[in-house]
Amino acid sequence: MIQHDYMKRAIKLAKAGCGFVNPNPMVGAVIVKNGEIIGEGYHRKYGELHAERDALNNCITSPKEATLYVTLEPCCHYGKTPPCTDAILKSGIKKVVIGSCDPNPIMQEKGIALLRKHGIKVIEHVLEEECNKLNEVFFHYITTNTPYVIMKYAMTMDGKIATHCGKSKWITGELAREHVHRQRHKYSSIMVGVKTVLVDDPLLTCRVENGKNPIRIICDTNLRTPLNAKVITTAKAIKTIIATASTSVLEQRPYWQAGCEVITVPKRNGHLDLKKLMKKLGTQEIDSVLIEGGGALHWSALQSQIVNKHCCYIAPKLFGGEQAKTPIAGIGIENPDHAFFLKNSKVLQLGDDFLIESEVQYSCLQE
Amino acid sequence: MIQHDYMKRAIKLAKAGCGFVNPNPMVGAVIVKNGEIIGEGYHRKYGELHAERDALNNCITSPKEATLYVTLEPCCHYGKTPPCTDAILKSGIKKVVIGSCDPNPIMQEKGIALLRKHGIKVIEHVLEEECNKLNEVFFHYITTNTPYVIMKYAMTMDGKIATHCGKSKWITGELAREHVHRQRHKYSSIMVGVKTVLVDDPLLTCRVENGKNPIRIICDTNLRTPLNAKVITTAKAIKTIIATASTSVLEQRPYWQAGCEVITVPKRNGHLDLKKLMKKLGTQEIDSVLIEGGGALHWSALQSQIVNKHCCYIAPKLFGGEQAKTPIAGIGIENPDHAFFLKNSKVLQLGDDFLIESEVQYSCLQE
Repeated sequence: MIQHDYMKRAIKLAKAGCGFVNPNPMVGAVIVKNGEIIGEGYHRKYGELHAERDALNNCITSPKEATLYVTLEPCCHYGKTPPCTDAILKSGIKKVVIGSCDPNPIMQEKGIALLRKHGIKVIEHVLEEECNKLNEVFFHYITTNTPYVIMKYAMTMDGKIATHCGKSKWITGELAREHVHRQRHKYSSIMVGVKTVLVDDPLLTCRVENGKNPIRIICDTNLRTPLNAKVITTAKAIKTIIATASTSVLEQRPYWQAGCEVITVPKRNGHLDLKKLMKKLGTQEIDSVLIEGGGALHWSALQSQIVNKHCCYIAPKLFGGEQAKTPIAGIGIENPDHAFFLKNSKVLQLGDDFLIESEVQYSCLQE
Repeated sequence: MIQHDYMKRAIKLAKAGCGFVNPNPMVGAVIVKNGEIIGEGYHRKYGELHAERDALNNCITSPKEATLYVTLEPCCHYGKTPPCTDAILKSGIKKVVIGSCDPNPIMQEKGIALLRKHGIKVIEHVLEEECNKLNEVFFHYITTNTPYVIMKYAMTMDGKIATHCGKSKWITGELAREHVHRQRHKYSSIMVGVKTVLVDDPLLTCRVENGKNPIRIICDTNLRTPLNAKVITTAKAIKTIIATASTSVLEQRPYWQAGCEVITVPKRNGHLDLKKLMKKLGTQEIDSVLIEGGGALHWSALQSQIVNKHCCYIAPKLFGGEQAKTPIAGIGIENPDHAFFLKNSKVLQLGDDFLIESEVQYSCLQE
């Protein structure tokens, strides 16, 4: 095995923490001595051991003179756990191979500098792109203090999210729907507009084995969510946030009583100010928001420039219908040059369906 | 080189006839002797030599005892040219390797049987799938006597073909638009609804080097096409068909005078009966129709079950807009189970854009 293989193994280990470590990064570590892996580990859960310490704990022989492969620069500060650099120095490891540097501008390269100061050989940037990709959520959150926002919808090949009668079960097949549930596991929270609650009364839970439910966020400017909606009646078991412009204690109280948290945000152009909402969610350590529509919320989110990633599931079927709902509604742009542009699009086939994932690229034209 | 390589070469040669041979098939032929290609040819233009004769004519040495690789079963009947089997027998060729069998049920395997009867070794089904794919238009046309119909549109990732103000220039980038023009070259005719003429006043020509203009067909139930529309003023130079339900000589005359052909078709559910129109076009040796919208015509075409292939160009941008136009309009289906299903979808990347090509699969639910 060569350097890249060990780092690939560390990336694979890191992914096992997906959905459990937020708002921490996913990190994996492999310790190698005389060409043999003697210890492996990963960050398993928020608040628990970092990957480096987990791997050291799992060593089957002394890590003295060994090489540590780790997907992210080891921390050198006290957080929920003591600095990993301490553990590395104490272990007698002589070489550390790193994927991503610490994205936090205050911490960046400090861990590496400390290790080098103590005579440890450090190699950086190994499979860096892959390691960075692994933690796009963390990298965004740690540098902006606002959640990484993913807009997701499923549509037919002719761009419909429901028939003209409003029926939408189902657009995509099983594999694509399972993929959506894995996203719900991966991200910290899920957000819908009140219209979706009124029309579909969804549960918004994660229905995959060993999956974690995301925090549910309902954008409800005027507090129209029915108290018997599933998201409300289950709010004591699954964290639920109502984001509203209403500041009336009287109006908010029934939702508190049902177990919801109510966040008040001012209006902007008649809708909730989503940028301000994201800031408030960021302070609650919510590092990611999966927006699952409908069309009005999608348009508001785009206009507010909060969307980082766009996930479009496309089913190989056609609904037709001049009045059938489309994924992004609102008023829309006037001039094609002022469109919201997507970049680095990648296509994934999921059974008969396709998923096109892209990054959103804002320009001054959307200001 | 092995058998497959020669057939691949023959397929490549066949494609050079694309756009010029309709309603004939594209056919390529390679003649091999002692491991050397001694002659190559293809069907270059409707009415001209078939591939086999073209290859024989181009032989640099005697084809006696040689092997002929040909993408389609040689004909054994008199059409515009005498039977190819005659030429093969006369040439002294001892072995014939064939891709597709003649799809015409009356002719199928007759050419092969004749060759075998005369002691020629015949090997069938070599790269058959690829050879069949090459001539999906011809195979459809020869067995149904109606054109192969391709529905094509370009939309944003959120399913819009124009902004809410109706602006659509441009959705896709240059590579995708060039691809569309190559389709216009490939297929015999292009069809739009009168609304597209009224809104966009398009020329509907093929703008690629050495490209061939398709016959232009305007679906215009009530003869609303303006006489100063570009398709009409250029009708003396480029064949233009107006399909209408109007039977009034008075109403039709100005279009004849402008150089158009007018085809009368009855109405069905308030629109032109597209199935009947296809039958009429078939009798005119129009083997293929590229439908380029808009949404109303697309819906009619789907409902009439005339569409064989669906080509969706997707641009990585978002327009939004509840009122923005979508590619397939009309009333649309009510129940997702009654959707028009697509199969064998293939994704092609064209610059930043994607093209998803699929076959349309009708079911009894759409009857």
